[in-house]
Amino acid sequence: MSFLRFDQTTADWVIFAPSRARRPHEFRRRSNPEGENRDDAKDCPFCPGHEGYTPSEIYAERPSGAGQAEWIVRVIPNKFPALRIEEDNRRYEDGSGFRYIEGCGAHEVLVESREHQILPAEQRVEQIERVLRTAQSRYRDLLRDLRFQAVVIFKNHGEAAGTSLKHPHWQLIATPVVPRLLRLKYSVATEYFDLTGYCLHSVLLHQEVTDKLRVLETNEHFVAIMPYASHHPFETWVLPRRQQSSFGSVESSQFRSLAEILKSVFLRLHRGLENPDFNLTIDTVPRGDESKEYFLWHIRIIPRLTTAAGFELGSGMSINTVLPEEAAEFLRKVDLS
Amino acid sequence: MSFLRFDQTTADWVIFAPSRARRPHEFRRRSNPEGENRDDAKDCPFCPGHEGYTPSEIYAERPSGAGQAEWIVRVIPNKFPALRIEEDNRRYEDGSGFRYIEGCGAHEVLVESREHQILPAEQRVEQIERVLRTAQSRYRDLLRDLRFQAVVIFKNHGEAAGTSLKHPHWQLIATPVVPRLLRLKYSVATEYFDLTGYCLHSVLLHQEVTDKLRVLETNEHFVAIMPYASHHPFETWVLPRRQQSSFGSVESSQFRSLAEILKSVFLRLHRGLENPDFNLTIDTVPRGDESKEYFLWHIRIIPRLTTAAGFELGSGMSINTVLPEEAAEFLRKVDLS
Repeated sequence: MSFLRFDQTTADWVIFAPSRARRPHEFRRRSNPEGENRDDAKDCPFCPGHEGYTPSEIYAERPSGAGQAEWIVRVIPNKFPALRIEEDNRRYEDGSGFRYIEGCGAHEVLVESREHQILPAEQRVEQIERVLRTAQSRYRDLLRDLRFQAVVIFKNHGEAAGTSLKHPHWQLIATPVVPRLLRLKYSVATEYFDLTGYCLHSVLLHQEVTDKLRVLETNEHFVAIMPYASHHPFETWVLPRRQQSSFGSVESSQFRSLAEILKSVFLRLHRGLENPDFNLTIDTVPRGDESKEYFLWHIRIIPRLTTAAGFELGSGMSINTVLPEEAAEFLRKVDLS
Repeated sequence: MSFLRFDQTTADWVIFAPSRARRPHEFRRRSNPEGENRDDAKDCPFCPGHEGYTPSEIYAERPSGAGQAEWIVRVIPNKFPALRIEEDNRRYEDGSGFRYIEGCGAHEVLVESREHQILPAEQRVEQIERVLRTAQSRYRDLLRDLRFQAVVIFKNHGEAAGTSLKHPHWQLIATPVVPRLLRLKYSVATEYFDLTGYCLHSVLLHQEVTDKLRVLETNEHFVAIMPYASHHPFETWVLPRRQQSSFGSVESSQFRSLAEILKSVFLRLHRGLENPDFNLTIDTVPRGDESKEYFLWHIRIIPRLTTAAGFELGSGMSINTVLPEEAAEFLRKVDLS
């Protein structure tokens, strides 16, 4: 069972999920943590035919008349969830004055392919589109639970990005509070909107598109850029070209365009940097703000090429050793054919 | 030459230090980045006798009459500095509306031992004390430059903690702005002080000491705890027992006590977790707040046992799989003899 504890020194919440843990002594250097880097398809709980290894299916797409194992995309609860819908979201205070919430939320896994070994850059555009549509549908469904304040959608690719299972998958975690970094971004963008009447991200995107230097690619509905103040080398954002605050508002007609630009970004990173480990995450407004025009939802891709060290952990400030304009120039030259 | 760029979406600054960089193509997976994990003492710029490999010495302690190579602690400018005192701290706006500062600041390396291979847990208490005194003296000196708003003191131990040179060293980076995480902590603690008249950290420390569960050790002047809402497994804090806002205010008579508790924490981590990689960082008030009583300066030690993944990068929220009370119980049992 998990819970959230309030960190009074930073005014944010920390999720404690001891059921996901090794025991303290298992953190020793020589231990071989259970379940990590299980990359053998034979034991993989996400491979077709292994449906019984996972908790009950939440959603799946199958050709009509197909059998249980013939899914083409599949969503299941995480077997070791960080948060669970069964818990409640009340605040408690223990005898010593510390505050906590029981582990209310949701933690889903979106298995994005039947193929155990396929890389992001190898996925077909149709399949990427299907995954994005499924992610949106789960996102919308989770937000119907009024206890959830935000839904974080993300993907970890490779060991340096924290993957524990190799079979390609996305994840969604719904939280009973707005997480710190998102709260900060909303508050900064809201203040800007109050002051100027403009969406901060739209203004920045306009500056980037005018500047051209850091634009990686543009298509019908989306733009891929490496932002002026990127926190990480080769950090890449995909944003909609027209005002759209929530990932839940992406229209059916836009998904092909989104899948195409994402496929292209995956390919550029894969060929330019030789299959780097990366995290992908979707920044979108919190529930209730879908119709407010202060934010542009966007995908952020963070290749894990460097290690955050004491300065970054101590200060919260990033040191980036690659200029985004040089990274963009380098990746624009990648041959996509 | 480095500079800072303003990230308008989070209202913080990012340091760009391309002189520390590999070129874009060198981020490819198979490349062998220059200078990383040079663990051969023969080429080590921090080993005695290699004083000529480093920029000019800022400070050193030597027995009287000793030669150049006979230092017992030594401070030098970082050869690939994130920030430099030669730059100015003016704000600029480029043609497109983006804001930046030239790389004004300082980046020093404190070589903490003559011995290339010695581990933190193996250092003698007298040497740890000497290093802490030296760090304080450099900290105070850097704050005399009115352009610097904060000084981040940190140590990286091991590859997972971002070490690039094995020879044990601390670092100090002075920044021309208050970094984001520190700004957040100051603002939360100041608000608490305004509301209650108490120092937030003193109140939390009192709660922890009353609760006992997460206290690792206490000595004359300091307490080591694993805080209630630890963001990382085995995260350990060392705090002064009496009100002291700034690391610069530690009195000469307190340093032995501080070195002793730090040595003990190093030993517990080393024996309990078998020499884990870790980051150590010192949280202290920004310049000018030394006499305000809203904050307790403290050392934070973060063992690098897990990898931050998409959820953490996307939301800024931590998932911790080990309860601090269990971690403390485990490390209290370590045999220190």
